[in-house]
Amino acid sequence: MAVYTEVTDDALGAFLAEYDLGTMVAFRGIAEGVENSNYSLRTTTGDYILTLYEKRVDPAELPWFLGLMEHLARRGIVCPLPVHGRDGQALRYLCGRHAAITTFLPGVWPRRVRVEHCGPLGTALASLHVAGAGYAPTRPNALGPGGWGPLLERSRARADELQPGLGAELAAALGRILAAWPSGLPGGHIHADLFPDNVFFLDGRLSGLIDFYFAATDILAYDVAVCLNAWCFEQDFTFNVTKARAMLSGYVATRSLSAEERAALPVLCQGAALRFLLTRLYDWLNTPPGALVTRKDPLEYLRRLRFHLAAPDEHAYGI
Amino acid sequence: MAVYTEVTDDALGAFLAEYDLGTMVAFRGIAEGVENSNYSLRTTTGDYILTLYEKRVDPAELPWFLGLMEHLARRGIVCPLPVHGRDGQALRYLCGRHAAITTFLPGVWPRRVRVEHCGPLGTALASLHVAGAGYAPTRPNALGPGGWGPLLERSRARADELQPGLGAELAAALGRILAAWPSGLPGGHIHADLFPDNVFFLDGRLSGLIDFYFAATDILAYDVAVCLNAWCFEQDFTFNVTKARAMLSGYVATRSLSAEERAALPVLCQGAALRFLLTRLYDWLNTPPGALVTRKDPLEYLRRLRFHLAAPDEHAYGI
Repeated sequence: MAVYTEVTDDALGAFLAEYDLGTMVAFRGIAEGVENSNYSLRTTTGDYILTLYEKRVDPAELPWFLGLMEHLARRGIVCPLPVHGRDGQALRYLCGRHAAITTFLPGVWPRRVRVEHCGPLGTALASLHVAGAGYAPTRPNALGPGGWGPLLERSRARADELQPGLGAELAAALGRILAAWPSGLPGGHIHADLFPDNVFFLDGRLSGLIDFYFAATDILAYDVAVCLNAWCFEQDFTFNVTKARAMLSGYVATRSLSAEERAALPVLCQGAALRFLLTRLYDWLNTPPGALVTRKDPLEYLRRLRFHLAAPDEHAYGI
Repeated sequence: MAVYTEVTDDALGAFLAEYDLGTMVAFRGIAEGVENSNYSLRTTTGDYILTLYEKRVDPAELPWFLGLMEHLARRGIVCPLPVHGRDGQALRYLCGRHAAITTFLPGVWPRRVRVEHCGPLGTALASLHVAGAGYAPTRPNALGPGGWGPLLERSRARADELQPGLGAELAAALGRILAAWPSGLPGGHIHADLFPDNVFFLDGRLSGLIDFYFAATDILAYDVAVCLNAWCFEQDFTFNVTKARAMLSGYVATRSLSAEERAALPVLCQGAALRFLLTRLYDWLNTPPGALVTRKDPLEYLRRLRFHLAAPDEHAYGI
């Protein structure tokens, strides 16, 4: 769940007065999302999402995220559009936090991924990559390969609390992945966290993408690898190659993948699995009892990582 | 927060097909409420709340709660109205839980209670008491005075973990309260949990009451005592008699309080403070680490209890 900061009605009223959004009709905390506080806000002019940015987000980077969303939305990607106040600003303060209002997207995220979701997801990801091309500012990916070593160091001493030998296994995997990490692949702006809970569907069609606060400038095909991890494993952690094929077919219908990008898929998938494993591991070891977030099991990504390490080539992903 | 049960989109679609509510437009978990899983549900016909009843609610009692809400709503109390399916049933099953859809109420609950909230709150409470009179089925209050002794017994051995001497202090208070507990006061259906987060306001007016799942048949003035505890203490736990006077004035404008009811306010307030102290104490001692709910500090109610134990008579409450 994600309401870390409680917004008083007085403060909200004053905040809304900075916008041309009419007056408040309803206001509810949203249980989804783990990084920021999100509220569903209804005013006399429509529905919006109010986000208060919590500690994990660097305030200096917020203009980049909001600018990217605005850029993408203006180019036809259905994503939250930041709403500007009367002074032209989309980013302001509320209850001691940076805060922004964005448009509300209809749709429901798929609790159970079916193969029919994967094609549209691939197409939407490719469209995002294409549409992002004109956005000039860049943001290095702090959770890209350069960040994995330091991240592992912060958890390594206690990693074996989860599973004996885990620390050594991760260190070996990290060394192998970094040694094989590709260079020269096409780059651009990536979502970097396009899990099913960030993708809405309505009447069987993809209706929107949300939560751009891990977006960064990195290898585009790495974003494909994130989605292969997030969408194509079954609940028993077996890999569903039919879903992968559907996703990749959807992707290449809008943006082709070069031979080099295809060949790099195994190591990119290894890296993506390691990235989520490492952040989950850190959170697992450092989430205080009674915290409001559900800890996610890091070992789910160890299963994925092992699959990708065993993949002989890109054909393991159905292409 | 409160989303304990994850509803799959397939299951939700099949569930909605049992109603004449159109098709799904949006579906979000709601962060508020601690007993059940609540979702904000938008369909092509409007906005609703989907509630999945979790373990603390006895399924056998759900028809009583839904019937009360329907009774009250039909008599002008703005509260969630259960929506019936095509088969006439309001209560059904979803993802292994009993579940119901109710209407969505606009409004925002006051994060900071001002004196202007208290008059309308008192009036709404009295209206609820009057409107409830025609609802024939009764529900004994499991969290009424008869339940406090057993509840204390479940926590007493560990109560001093919170504060030395707490167990003995609570046992002494319980004895004193039960000995002085009034009989013969007017009874009826009470909300029993009318805290600020269960009361919506819109444009300065009270716009609705929610969360009837602690409602029961008990002394009506005990409900007033619950509200005096919930609405009239400041953040430093001082009692704001101006708020109490406003609430009681609002109440008696719609339903008068007899001399006996007024005289009983101190002991009723003591009982109400003890009731919330005891459930919070139990939750504090028994909430597992990593649970999704925020534990509420039981000692906030010890401060209130001590205030009420020191109240010489009803004039302490501004009347």
